[in-house]
Amino acid sequence: MFEFKILYEDGNARVCKMIIGSKSVETPLFLPVATKGTVKLITWKELEEIGYKAIITNALIMYFKPGLDVIERFGSIHKFFGFNGIIFTDSGGFQMIRQGFLEKISENYAIFKSPFDNSKHKISPEFSIEIQKRLKSDVMLTLDICPEYTKDYEKIKKATMLTIEWAKRCKTVAKDSTLFGIIQGGIFKDLREYCTRELIKLDFDGYAIGGLSIGEPKEVMYDILKFNVNLLPKDKPRYFMGLGSAEDILKCISLGIDIFDSAFPTRNARHDTAYTFHGKIIINRAKYKYDTRPLEEGCNCFTCRNYTRAYLHHLSKVNEFLYKRLLTIHNLFFLKRLLDETKKAIRQGYFDEILKEMNIR
Amino acid sequence: MFEFKILYEDGNARVCKMIIGSKSVETPLFLPVATKGTVKLITWKELEEIGYKAIITNALIMYFKPGLDVIERFGSIHKFFGFNGIIFTDSGGFQMIRQGFLEKISENYAIFKSPFDNSKHKISPEFSIEIQKRLKSDVMLTLDICPEYTKDYEKIKKATMLTIEWAKRCKTVAKDSTLFGIIQGGIFKDLREYCTRELIKLDFDGYAIGGLSIGEPKEVMYDILKFNVNLLPKDKPRYFMGLGSAEDILKCISLGIDIFDSAFPTRNARHDTAYTFHGKIIINRAKYKYDTRPLEEGCNCFTCRNYTRAYLHHLSKVNEFLYKRLLTIHNLFFLKRLLDETKKAIRQGYFDEILKEMNIR
Repeated sequence: MFEFKILYEDGNARVCKMIIGSKSVETPLFLPVATKGTVKLITWKELEEIGYKAIITNALIMYFKPGLDVIERFGSIHKFFGFNGIIFTDSGGFQMIRQGFLEKISENYAIFKSPFDNSKHKISPEFSIEIQKRLKSDVMLTLDICPEYTKDYEKIKKATMLTIEWAKRCKTVAKDSTLFGIIQGGIFKDLREYCTRELIKLDFDGYAIGGLSIGEPKEVMYDILKFNVNLLPKDKPRYFMGLGSAEDILKCISLGIDIFDSAFPTRNARHDTAYTFHGKIIINRAKYKYDTRPLEEGCNCFTCRNYTRAYLHHLSKVNEFLYKRLLTIHNLFFLKRLLDETKKAIRQGYFDEILKEMNIR
Repeated sequence: MFEFKILYEDGNARVCKMIIGSKSVETPLFLPVATKGTVKLITWKELEEIGYKAIITNALIMYFKPGLDVIERFGSIHKFFGFNGIIFTDSGGFQMIRQGFLEKISENYAIFKSPFDNSKHKISPEFSIEIQKRLKSDVMLTLDICPEYTKDYEKIKKATMLTIEWAKRCKTVAKDSTLFGIIQGGIFKDLREYCTRELIKLDFDGYAIGGLSIGEPKEVMYDILKFNVNLLPKDKPRYFMGLGSAEDILKCISLGIDIFDSAFPTRNARHDTAYTFHGKIIINRAKYKYDTRPLEEGCNCFTCRNYTRAYLHHLSKVNEFLYKRLLTIHNLFFLKRLLDETKKAIRQGYFDEILKEMNIR
């Protein structure tokens, strides 16, 4: 049911093919985030037209609202959404560090509070997998313990040990379904190594590196990430959770990461920022008032084909939210272009040049 | 430059062709409202795909923001918007009854306050036309005096007399540009009649009935409207400003109205209401939680082809604003369908049956 093939390599960077049942997608892969059931402000058709075939949603949120009964009425999360691509489901571990979600963790389960009605829900690793299975997730993730960023070794050690236990329990009930294991260990290399080795023993379909990009200094993040990636088997996909700037994605690809997700490009679009190959554009700035050019010259996205900076600037100044949608489309297209360029460069062996061009070491 | 031909008649209802320069459109015509420069939440492409070839924007607002200098940099309001259809420009008279816009009216001009920066602007009838010409409006409207709804005869008489004076001044400077005259007169038939006759003498390209649908009882509105329409020449378009429900539009068509504009279908979409031929759907209601049907079965709009009530309901419950856009598309499509059905009925002489079906006398 799950296959992963390396197609091209250039240094540690690679282009791979991931096959999940009847669906397939190439990596490096960026997953737009549809936490509450939609990639904010855009339709699935727009997403597909930009070129995205896979997204990530959140199983815990879907369990809270609309609830499994609604989704089961449709048969799958795909049918409920109206999206036929690949759907990754985050387990909910990450919600532990979001304000107001986590009530309590014990050996056996976590208690989460629904942000929609404050109801409390006991979520064990087994139940997390049951939720994800009932959603008909294409790629499930283990329920991990993701503590806030801390230098407290004992705290991270405890979370890491429980993460390993829970990963085992998830794996046991997942059976043939595609399941990625999430690695924790904070900024401690020995814990990262121990967690990674234990998870590898369980033979997951892929490995997600969690618990980074949550407030630690960037150089620490890259030091730990590099260390952790090197412990992973080459023939399995590597997923770095929660990173979305062009520079970070390219750097991670150079370290051997295959999959990313982040609200970065869509959230920043809603906060007036468009990304281009010539730097970012903060569209509400006065300098764009008379600018008859598209966001990026030569860009073939819907927004750049149809709208000018001056018009988008105007919409931002009069609070017409259409521009947030138009910037979302552009930013996702920009990232897709970047990944397409990257794949081509890896295929043809000049990925280093792209890193140099973008000033990434 | 401006032509208007009656193609079919059925009672007082009619299907006409309006030709403005190189552009043409059939009536009955509904103009979606783009007051601040966009039909809220949707793109021009979506609007055109639904079947709308004409909109109305507001010259006064465009003058405030982005300002004539920005639009002249593009050459026309069409190029600035990125919309190649027919653009009507409201003069700003209606802004007189909106909170905070009007500072003062004298014989010669009105002083308006910009809601964007509180700056004050002297707008004479001549300057209103100059603004509209510089925008390259397809159909301009005279600067009228639109008082709030009142039974105070003297107040309305004064406003009506000034409206006539200003209409003359607008006509003098408009020259060959397409210009509709706006009729005032409140709920007083003698004033309506006097204003209408004076405006007809000026030979406008079309006549807009203003100063109704602003708080008066509905039966009074229809009584005055019917009286006023009957005073108008048959061979000129009749525009009733600010009415947008299906029932009202059909009723007005039966009285001989050709053109409508209203924020009704788009604003109500943003407030969770979808219109169908089987009544309205308030999408955030619990009854739609498990509803796997589209908003309206048999509807061919983008929303109904791709989304279910249950999913739209979910988006409304988790505050994902995409549903507001999807409801906007549906409501505009619904109204377009209604107008297409109406045209067909008028053409084939069974318009009465549609009125009966919709319970409209």
